[in-house]
Amino acid sequence: MKKSIMLAFVLCNSFLALAQKKDGLVLQTIYKTALTNSQCYSWLDYLSNQIGGRLSGSTNAEKAVFYTKSQLETLGLDRVFLQEVMVPKWVRGDKEVAYIVNNKTKIAVPICALGGSVATPKNGLLAPIIEVHSIADLAQLGDKIKGKIVFFNRPMDPENIETFKSYGGCVDQRFDGAKEASKWGAVGTIVRSMNLRLDDFPHTGVQSYGDIPKSQYIPTAAISTNAAELLSKTLKKNPTLKFYFKQSCQQLPDVLSYNVVGEIKGSTHPENIMVVGGHLDSWDLADGSHDDGAGVVQSMEVLNIFKKMGYKPQNTLRVVLFMNEENGGKGGEKYQELAQSNHENHILALESDSGGFSPRGFSLECDEANFATISGWKTLFEPYLIHSFVKGHSGSDIELLTSKNLVKAGLKPDSQRYFDYHHALNDTFDAINKRELELGAATMTSLVYLIDQYGVVK
Amino acid sequence: MKKSIMLAFVLCNSFLALAQKKDGLVLQTIYKTALTNSQCYSWLDYLSNQIGGRLSGSTNAEKAVFYTKSQLETLGLDRVFLQEVMVPKWVRGDKEVAYIVNNKTKIAVPICALGGSVATPKNGLLAPIIEVHSIADLAQLGDKIKGKIVFFNRPMDPENIETFKSYGGCVDQRFDGAKEASKWGAVGTIVRSMNLRLDDFPHTGVQSYGDIPKSQYIPTAAISTNAAELLSKTLKKNPTLKFYFKQSCQQLPDVLSYNVVGEIKGSTHPENIMVVGGHLDSWDLADGSHDDGAGVVQSMEVLNIFKKMGYKPQNTLRVVLFMNEENGGKGGEKYQELAQSNHENHILALESDSGGFSPRGFSLECDEANFATISGWKTLFEPYLIHSFVKGHSGSDIELLTSKNLVKAGLKPDSQRYFDYHHALNDTFDAINKRELELGAATMTSLVYLIDQYGVVK
Repeated sequence: MKKSIMLAFVLCNSFLALAQKKDGLVLQTIYKTALTNSQCYSWLDYLSNQIGGRLSGSTNAEKAVFYTKSQLETLGLDRVFLQEVMVPKWVRGDKEVAYIVNNKTKIAVPICALGGSVATPKNGLLAPIIEVHSIADLAQLGDKIKGKIVFFNRPMDPENIETFKSYGGCVDQRFDGAKEASKWGAVGTIVRSMNLRLDDFPHTGVQSYGDIPKSQYIPTAAISTNAAELLSKTLKKNPTLKFYFKQSCQQLPDVLSYNVVGEIKGSTHPENIMVVGGHLDSWDLADGSHDDGAGVVQSMEVLNIFKKMGYKPQNTLRVVLFMNEENGGKGGEKYQELAQSNHENHILALESDSGGFSPRGFSLECDEANFATISGWKTLFEPYLIHSFVKGHSGSDIELLTSKNLVKAGLKPDSQRYFDYHHALNDTFDAINKRELELGAATMTSLVYLIDQYGVVK
Repeated sequence: MKKSIMLAFVLCNSFLALAQKKDGLVLQTIYKTALTNSQCYSWLDYLSNQIGGRLSGSTNAEKAVFYTKSQLETLGLDRVFLQEVMVPKWVRGDKEVAYIVNNKTKIAVPICALGGSVATPKNGLLAPIIEVHSIADLAQLGDKIKGKIVFFNRPMDPENIETFKSYGGCVDQRFDGAKEASKWGAVGTIVRSMNLRLDDFPHTGVQSYGDIPKSQYIPTAAISTNAAELLSKTLKKNPTLKFYFKQSCQQLPDVLSYNVVGEIKGSTHPENIMVVGGHLDSWDLADGSHDDGAGVVQSMEVLNIFKKMGYKPQNTLRVVLFMNEENGGKGGEKYQELAQSNHENHILALESDSGGFSPRGFSLECDEANFATISGWKTLFEPYLIHSFVKGHSGSDIELLTSKNLVKAGLKPDSQRYFDYHHALNDTFDAINKRELELGAATMTSLVYLIDQYGVVK
């Protein structure tokens, strides 16, 4: 008996060693293919430089749908299709104008309307401005807010190593600021850009009026970090100064758009679905190369790499390019709705939406057993400098997706530079490094391969 | 007896846990200080934007010596001094000119003279050009080389994850190419830039004629990767085309320059010296922000962080800003010479000379025992995403340094983008991210702290 246990143990160990060796070789091929024979960089070049900013409902967003669909059609997938989805359409209008009006001096400052904001009156809005550092400050100030513009100026915390944590600690000012300030009688809000460095780019992003009545909607805009510092300093010297801004943005009726989907049918378990994805829409100020052109082309590349390697996944592999992550999340909602009504069983959803920088690991939403299994693959990833396997948010577009035993994951690139570009004028193709982009695609492909081989723990 | 062993074991474990906790808190303070209260970024701003390129022997190199010395003098160190060193002085002269001369068509291409190269004849050099992929190819071609320009066109290998490995696999073409081609009667060499991406920047760098007679020195220059591709393609269509280039660089007599040294005397073991450093000289095409302005200011920051924290090192801590790493290594030589003649005992030498990108770990030159000890600190570094502790090259300036039980280390930043900038026109301040630079400084400081606390294994 003892001998047979020993034999089983030895056999089992040899088998594991062999599997580990085989997987190591497969990952080697994946990374090699990504670094020498991938298309993601040229796809992104087209998306960014030939199409450009792709805000939901825009002509560019539509062009991006048809371009990525046509590119997926060249890869020899089993099917490529569109999922119809109604999306909000917000347009920025004319370039915004803003001044600090300090007695007789007018200092021009760079601002941009936040997504979903209403316009100012045609000739702009001039009012006293009051600085706060949080939504909680509003209640403290109470009546002092009435008739004023509220200036939310809490900076991102530089102490966090993960910059997304600092973003999370600040973004309520942008998302809820106007709604909350309006309740205290503010006439507008100006929000310090979510940016860790001091520069001259205002960073847009979505905001929401929640359920306050339309009559109480007030215009809201982001101001560059340099200008926020200047405004704060000038306000300290002259608390009665005024601020002027003019923007002509508006919300139009919803329009029809699409998620783009490409699929390789699983050879053994076609009923199990693995999704890789990013979002096809972007903000309008730049071409959205990092947010989220990178995630889109990396996700497409996962299927491309498997095709180039001749690897046939056992489970169905789907790339989904979600529409409208930035200002509505309608694409993600629609995908989940259809998955549910079609009784689909997802085992993996992997999103890339944190920029195209050097990959460091994955942020995982799954149970303990799957977390342990995936963390156990660390040594396989080590040669590629992938080292960070943590529990945390995976991705906005897959947030609603549910399935029994679903592993959700987000690709985790180096985050130090991300908020230099996020939602700003400089999120352009030249900020992308080809190799970093390719390494991210290879890292995603490797996780998909391992999940495909070993499934999820049930 | 058993009980006392048990007690000793428990005490020892508690002590280790306490020490680990204390160290964890110290590292937390180090990183916090770097991210919120450091000077490295503004020092680099001055070095790059107020001084600029700092090639050995130039006025700018001298300015950099006096600027960094004066800045170190503000930090309250125990002494700040200069080490005299004679350095080579090579000057580029007028901007280089080059053409592919294909029948009657002249195509201008971007080149730059390699450091140490001789000039072409005054009116330039026109000759047939022959492409090779390695120095070994020269012997194969033999007589066919005579009277021609040799075009070394082996690209950096994109498959390596660590880009320095690809650099190492290519740089012989630049360093030895002219010397070797001259032996076969070549009249000049053109070398594909050491750059992983395709762009229009020629990358300079040092070359050596070794011990061939002066009369056999031939002019040598680097060509941008895009132009190398074009030249290769054009040569395939017309192998008899000619290449023209003109450069007026020259080697002048050696001049006096300096290493800059700042020191905090050890409180317990002043006789043990820990060195942190980078090189103050840079190539002349840009301002050398990554190579190696970043390493210079990060090294200065190590002492600054300790001062700000009120941490007094037990061993002597020295920052050394080496002169002439790029084209001679005279500063590193001089430092070792003086260390030896002063019978100094170095326990640590840590160099930062791989760019100012997000730090990933250390490349270590030390014995097994020290490697094991330092690798054992990995968990302390984990919160800061420092994960890569490998054996390998530490730094050029500390290459010659020897001492009993010396640990040599190189800071290992993310290497993907490094060769986009290395020795080229675009190695400028805007390519630096403040947080990445600061995280590198904190990572260096943390290693110095741990070595200072626990010494090196003897």
